[in-house]
Amino acid sequence: MNYSVILRTLGNMVLFEALFLTVPLVTAAIYWEAAFWMYLITIAICVAVGALCLLIKSKDKNVYSKEAFVIVALGWIVMSLFGALPFVMTQEIPSYVDALFETVSGFTTTGASILNGSQIESMSKANLMWRSFTHWLGGMGVLVFIMAFLPLSGAKNMNILKAESPGPQVSKIVPRVRQTARILYIIYTTLTVVELVLLLVGGMPLFDAITTSFATAGTGGFAVKSDSLTSYSPYLKWVVTIFMLLFSINFNSYFLLTKRKWKEALNAEVRAFIIIVFVAIGIIIANLCFSGGYTFAQAVGQAPFTVASIISTTGFVVNDFNLWPTLSKTVLVWLMFIGACAGSTGGGIKVSRWLMYIRSTTNEIGHIIHPKQVKKITLDKKVVEHDVVRSLNAFFVAFFVIFGLSVLAVSIEGYDFTTNFSAVAATINNVGPGLNLVGPAGNFGFFSAPTKLVLIFDMLAGRLEVFPMLVLFSPKTWKK
Amino acid sequence: MNYSVILRTLGNMVLFEALFLTVPLVTAAIYWEAAFWMYLITIAICVAVGALCLLIKSKDKNVYSKEAFVIVALGWIVMSLFGALPFVMTQEIPSYVDALFETVSGFTTTGASILNGSQIESMSKANLMWRSFTHWLGGMGVLVFIMAFLPLSGAKNMNILKAESPGPQVSKIVPRVRQTARILYIIYTTLTVVELVLLLVGGMPLFDAITTSFATAGTGGFAVKSDSLTSYSPYLKWVVTIFMLLFSINFNSYFLLTKRKWKEALNAEVRAFIIIVFVAIGIIIANLCFSGGYTFAQAVGQAPFTVASIISTTGFVVNDFNLWPTLSKTVLVWLMFIGACAGSTGGGIKVSRWLMYIRSTTNEIGHIIHPKQVKKITLDKKVVEHDVVRSLNAFFVAFFVIFGLSVLAVSIEGYDFTTNFSAVAATINNVGPGLNLVGPAGNFGFFSAPTKLVLIFDMLAGRLEVFPMLVLFSPKTWKK
Repeated sequence: MNYSVILRTLGNMVLFEALFLTVPLVTAAIYWEAAFWMYLITIAICVAVGALCLLIKSKDKNVYSKEAFVIVALGWIVMSLFGALPFVMTQEIPSYVDALFETVSGFTTTGASILNGSQIESMSKANLMWRSFTHWLGGMGVLVFIMAFLPLSGAKNMNILKAESPGPQVSKIVPRVRQTARILYIIYTTLTVVELVLLLVGGMPLFDAITTSFATAGTGGFAVKSDSLTSYSPYLKWVVTIFMLLFSINFNSYFLLTKRKWKEALNAEVRAFIIIVFVAIGIIIANLCFSGGYTFAQAVGQAPFTVASIISTTGFVVNDFNLWPTLSKTVLVWLMFIGACAGSTGGGIKVSRWLMYIRSTTNEIGHIIHPKQVKKITLDKKVVEHDVVRSLNAFFVAFFVIFGLSVLAVSIEGYDFTTNFSAVAATINNVGPGLNLVGPAGNFGFFSAPTKLVLIFDMLAGRLEVFPMLVLFSPKTWKK
Repeated sequence: MNYSVILRTLGNMVLFEALFLTVPLVTAAIYWEAAFWMYLITIAICVAVGALCLLIKSKDKNVYSKEAFVIVALGWIVMSLFGALPFVMTQEIPSYVDALFETVSGFTTTGASILNGSQIESMSKANLMWRSFTHWLGGMGVLVFIMAFLPLSGAKNMNILKAESPGPQVSKIVPRVRQTARILYIIYTTLTVVELVLLLVGGMPLFDAITTSFATAGTGGFAVKSDSLTSYSPYLKWVVTIFMLLFSINFNSYFLLTKRKWKEALNAEVRAFIIIVFVAIGIIIANLCFSGGYTFAQAVGQAPFTVASIISTTGFVVNDFNLWPTLSKTVLVWLMFIGACAGSTGGGIKVSRWLMYIRSTTNEIGHIIHPKQVKKITLDKKVVEHDVVRSLNAFFVAFFVIFGLSVLAVSIEGYDFTTNFSAVAATINNVGPGLNLVGPAGNFGFFSAPTKLVLIFDMLAGRLEVFPMLVLFSPKTWKK
């Protein structure tokens, strides 16, 4: 294990965090908030710790996949540990575990909060800005951001990109990793700014528009109002609906669009994603009208927004979907597991994984029917490599085993099965709200500290897609 | 598709069903019940239909895996369609869909009932006997039974054995399939008789002892009393507890025991099964005492029985575990998915599958840590073939997709999430009782006919381990 290079990379991350913390710092300055000093202290701590780490010399600059996975897992944990400090220092989230939960929820773009409505509304602007900004940073990846600026050796970059990027396969947009990272952030920033402008056009206050854009872009879901987005105008809700979906699509597709490769942009995953969204909206509208006693207009006002919010794993809310009939709620829970497209900022298992899973299953049935016929799994006419298939299957098992064990651990507290099941589903898939006690009208504050730690693990395991966390906690990793 | 051989095999199955129906016929004769005539009519129908099928000539006797899977799927459906007739004709289950649900629940050894307590207690002895006897037949497999007696070509037997036997790999105990089938039934019958004797020794009435032995042996769970086994003595409950566990163990192990191969008998799956049972009992006893307000004696009286009942997927009940604290209930639901050992009469995903899943996942993590090291999955020091691994993964995906879609379909009726989730979990894993409305104090009668059809599909998909049902419903199967 190359400890020195790990520590140096973590140092870089903490230094970059100091840079990121200037955003809430400036916010505090603008609003003349006391939080200014707390952010200044946090920045000082980050600079000191980061600089200390960079004092370590490393001769061997090689980062193999083991180190890359450890860097990603530890990096996200360390960023969250420091990022939680301002919440505690401002006394707006006095408990450190709560502050850590909120920060991890931010970076992992989960959006599950331990705060209730009035606590959110009385929070300082600086803290609200930091909460939303963590979504934006976590959405595309902190290390991907750093890679776009820092000169690191090629192999290192690729392994880290693999470990941090969501989806079963990493496709570099252009041959050079650094250039890929830059293009990703250019697309990401452009889309965020377009949403911001459209929200401002619709009359949303500047502060709300900035934070909402950050939270949409990262498919996070932290809002600055106690009722999430309920009280905004229908126009604003539709803008957010569309952007939640746009940020759930593989960013490669946007790059291909700029190259006028229309057909490649609308690949199998994007097509499946669009179909799932429309089918889910159709089922819920029918269910709300026929079994829920809603008018068609009410259903159209709630269903598309909520489906976009859940499948994109954002978690914004315009109504208490906990009051919907069971079929609609079950559709939402299953959408959490489907998730967004690979290579987007969204969470969940990802549409492309499901496509490959289903193809491997239909292949197997084909193999029973015609035993001599052995087909390879293909996606967009490209053969999925054996390595990827093996990793896919291991992911599926690991995901559901972690899910099952987490539900068990959360059950110790004795709340009802639906609360526990949906709390874990909403955190491991990085959605945010669940059902019953953790539904849109509730929050995660009532859980005990041990339960919160389990859910913190789940949020990180979900965002980093399981393996970095498992590698970090595997004794094999640390054996000489 | 070799239609003639399929029809001939189905004909044989129906003729054998006529033979099986003599058991309730004799019961009706002994108790002087009017059901006697209904069973006589059903037998006559079976003989007529079976004989008609055997009139079909078939030159080509080859049964490839496609035909084998279709025979198994259709065979189980046809047996259930005829087996349901006496319930309707006696008017004890007037609705045919209800009667079909009960029969499928019997053959698949699920034990989920649409009857309430008083309906069960007022049922004729013949029908009660038939309900329990279907468990015994379904447990080891109807086709396996037929194979032990009918001369079929070797290839046919092996393919059918593969399709009907539970578990990821079929291991013939001895080289000849027919001999294997006979040995399996000899072990099965012996264990059943031993249980019967032990129950009689404990003072259980003969009729109760026979039906309880049948239902334990098949890990089915239909009881002849409204309170399941609650009112029997502790001794009888312990006998059933032990036998539920014994019938959950791979029958190969018993054969190895007779050959004094102690070490091979106690293989990795059996060891894991024993550990899971003890851990589950430990967690539940602790949870009942610390959070549920139970005394240690009460907990010891309920936990081992219930854990054995659920992990063996039997479904006998000695207490309303729906009243247990959430952790204990969640343990039970997860045990449903773990299930029994492969090659036993129990259902669920099976312990050996889980062992292979977890090994393939730890291998994948090992591969990340040491990329040059590619390990094969092994179980008991034998390498698991690539074909088996591929099929295992397809099974996992197919299982959870069917599970998810079934929960959605059941949700249309609008009952709560826990009821729907546990109803599907309890049927697809062939357990029987679930939680909330389908808990030990409830039954499945209140569901609508379409929901019952979904659950019937799930019971069959669970018992036949998904693929036969998927092959049957795949359009590819029926294409020329």
